[in-house]
Amino acid sequence: MPDLHRTITRKQLATIASQIVDSYDELGGINHPDGLNLPSREQVVSILRDFLALLFPGYFGTEPILRQNVTFFVDGLLDSIYIHLRDEVEKSLFYEWKLANRDTTDCPGLADRITIDVLEQLPRIRTLVKKDVQAAYDGDPAAKSHDEVIVSYPCVQAITTYRIAHELYLRQVPLIPRIMSEHAHSQTGIDIHPGATIGESFFIDHGTGVVIGETTEIGNTVKLYQGVTLGALSFRKDTDGRIVKGGKRHPTIEDEVVIYSGATILGGSTVIGRGSVIGANVWLTSSIPPGTKVTIGTPKLEVVQRGSRTA
Amino acid sequence: MPDLHRTITRKQLATIASQIVDSYDELGGINHPDGLNLPSREQVVSILRDFLALLFPGYFGTEPILRQNVTFFVDGLLDSIYIHLRDEVEKSLFYEWKLANRDTTDCPGLADRITIDVLEQLPRIRTLVKKDVQAAYDGDPAAKSHDEVIVSYPCVQAITTYRIAHELYLRQVPLIPRIMSEHAHSQTGIDIHPGATIGESFFIDHGTGVVIGETTEIGNTVKLYQGVTLGALSFRKDTDGRIVKGGKRHPTIEDEVVIYSGATILGGSTVIGRGSVIGANVWLTSSIPPGTKVTIGTPKLEVVQRGSRTA
Amino acid sequence: MPDLHRTITRKQLATIASQIVDSYDELGGINHPDGLNLPSREQVVSILRDFLALLFPGYFGTEPILRQNVTFFVDGLLDSIYIHLRDEVEKSLFYEWKLANRDTTDCPGLADRITIDVLEQLPRIRTLVKKDVQAAYDGDPAAKSHDEVIVSYPCVQAITTYRIAHELYLRQVPLIPRIMSEHAHSQTGIDIHPGATIGESFFIDHGTGVVIGETTEIGNTVKLYQGVTLGALSFRKDTDGRIVKGGKRHPTIEDEVVIYSGATILGGSTVIGRGSVIGANVWLTSSIPPGTKVTIGTPKLEVVQRGSRTA
Repeated sequence: MPDLHRTITRKQLATIASQIVDSYDELGGINHPDGLNLPSREQVVSILRDFLALLFPGYFGTEPILRQNVTFFVDGLLDSIYIHLRDEVEKSLFYEWKLANRDTTDCPGLADRITIDVLEQLPRIRTLVKKDVQAAYDGDPAAKSHDEVIVSYPCVQAITTYRIAHELYLRQVPLIPRIMSEHAHSQTGIDIHPGATIGESFFIDHGTGVVIGETTEIGNTVKLYQGVTLGALSFRKDTDGRIVKGGKRHPTIEDEVVIYSGATILGGSTVIGRGSVIGANVWLTSSIPPGTKVTIGTPKLEVVQRGSRTA
Repeated sequence: MPDLHRTITRKQLATIASQIVDSYDELGGINHPDGLNLPSREQVVSILRDFLALLFPGYFGTEPILRQNVTFFVDGLLDSIYIHLRDEVEKSLFYEWKLANRDTTDCPGLADRITIDVLEQLPRIRTLVKKDVQAAYDGDPAAKSHDEVIVSYPCVQAITTYRIAHELYLRQVPLIPRIMSEHAHSQTGIDIHPGATIGESFFIDHGTGVVIGETTEIGNTVKLYQGVTLGALSFRKDTDGRIVKGGKRHPTIEDEVVIYSGATILGGSTVIGRGSVIGANVWLTSSIPPGTKVTIGTPKLEVVQRGSRTA
Repeated sequence: MPDLHRTITRKQLATIASQIVDSYDELGGINHPDGLNLPSREQVVSILRDFLALLFPGYFGTEPILRQNVTFFVDGLLDSIYIHLRDEVEKSLFYEWKLANRDTTDCPGLADRITIDVLEQLPRIRTLVKKDVQAAYDGDPAAKSHDEVIVSYPCVQAITTYRIAHELYLRQVPLIPRIMSEHAHSQTGIDIHPGATIGESFFIDHGTGVVIGETTEIGNTVKLYQGVTLGALSFRKDTDGRIVKGGKRHPTIEDEVVIYSGATILGGSTVIGRGSVIGANVWLTSSIPPGTKVTIGTPKLEVVQRGSRTA
């Protein structure tokens, strides 16, 4: 590149840079106050990886786990999760309290208590994810073994991530639960809000496009297929026309319900009664009594003569 | 952190760790017997990357491939695939046979034969994936070149991965085909079971949410859009109420069929006749003769007065 | 492995390798002419990462950004983007012009001008993405803060990537815009063609399965939900039966339209009038006047007796 050209380019880049720096002031969007950090997405993803290795030992790591080393393996992972999770929880509390002008003295202690609290749920979560794996094996004729389910079914990552993120959500940790659920969403196409309440033996087959909203309640032994939406019907607005945050906006799904692909169920007072079956592509905004089967009507068939078809 | 607090924390973590270790015994889920490994997901993904580099030379690597080096390039990649794939196949056979209490003496030899067998399909697979790329270029007015299709269309990764995984599935290799297909699913949103049978010149546009079940049969020159499900209608249960594994559960799609976005076609005896066109969001559970066009009815239009709309 | 077996294996691998090398000649697919490289996917993804760090300072990096270092931070990132983007643009122009037998002397200069041109849009793009984040916060009752939107909403990555890729598309850079959009598609399940025209304050909730075609036009303050398709209705074919490339094939969505999950809107002359609301799973192929609400009919309910249900 000739020197003159290089000089001009330098000048143009400098102009763009100074416009961007100015826009940081005008528009906000930079972390402020200085040095105040959001929790790190990379770190949260790495913590999730450790959780999965602990919950499914021998499935996701690269090293074989020998029986005589199990205690060593568990101690090491648990320690690593404790240290890193506490740091990220502390950052996220500190961040939120600072923005709210609250005294942040108690953040480290609270972060520690929350982290220990969440880790104490791990044996219970192990029991839950074991039942989820069993539900997948029982619910899919294509499943050849429990091992195949664990190493290759996307619902295992999505639901397990939900079960961990939900514990942080219940303890009002900002940002981290949603970073976790969005990582699982990105990997699996399954979007479960950490605020949802989900019972035992939950199975999602295939899963791409599934959306489960923040205030959804799901009972035991529920099975969903790909593309199912459990969403909000409409949003209340305040007198300024702004959407009101909070409130039960998403449906309740009772025990032993099956919802086929692409079905959309909306609304905070919509209850799908126990044992019901919702067919593919159904759109529902009102409650359904127990034991009901809902399907969309037979499609209109338009038969086109061979040869005249142009599409 | 004060020392007393640290001591308490240590104690809490030790309690959690010992509960988790105990739960490994109670719940299973650890690799057993000791040292017996599942195939490694990381390794399988890396093998898939090598396959893609070999099938589409110059598209996915970082180094330019010079004509005079092609033989060197192919030899190196093929060798790498052979060594690593054989190892993973051996691990997966060993794992399954051990669980079934079969004598595992023959595992290494069988792993070797299967691996060579699969590699011998590569020239044929190259011909197939070339036709798939051509089908994408022909089928999408937005496609500017074959190169654009190869470097940016998700169906290329999904279908090519299927074509490789299918060869392993046909040779009854456990776990690896599904790990491959779920990796492609995670990357592309396209979920093709390695057991499906798919003809030449197959194109999936956009692809997110597509599900193609294990016993699906697809002819030549078929085109699918995003969100299409080729699934099972319902599952036979045995006298204990358990789902019966196996059997033809997914539809047959004949040559030159086009299926638009969100359509759901279910059932093992459902046949979509040659040259048919299935419209968006259609839900079909029975066969359709050749040359038929199926669409859902015109939607009910509810016109709301301007100003009175509140949603 | 015994020596004889090893010799046989070597021979089989050599045969496969030579068949693959031959197939490179027969089938094409190798980069030609020699040494002529396509833009690197890895490099394009890394450039995108730099763009995101620059547009959302402090959100996606691992280091805190101190106020006094902002100029240094911006200069460094901008320089890095300039150098790498210019290289990739040059490669892609060189590749296309060579294939078209055009004189490539001007490629470096043009690549430089295009790159500077695109970088000059960054302050404007910052303003746009800020409005997109605001639209997400305003449009979703589950959004707790702008920060939560930025670190965890997939639409932020998808729409921001679109806004960058669109600038390259407008300047007719081959391949790179589509590599960018497909990376975002893979990460988020949202497939926005870089050719689409999209106004301010655009929000996509959840997003998995959304498809926005090349010639779509979207006004200001539009909200989409997961699984929405803005697609082509059918393709014109030439006298040889080949699909005609180009032309307006995708719909126009006017200001303040909301489109719920799974809706499919097709066709280049289809216009969704200002302020309309399109319900979930609707399938539309014709225009809708402003202020219209469109929903699919109430589903047929089939009530099944408890106990007699077998599915």
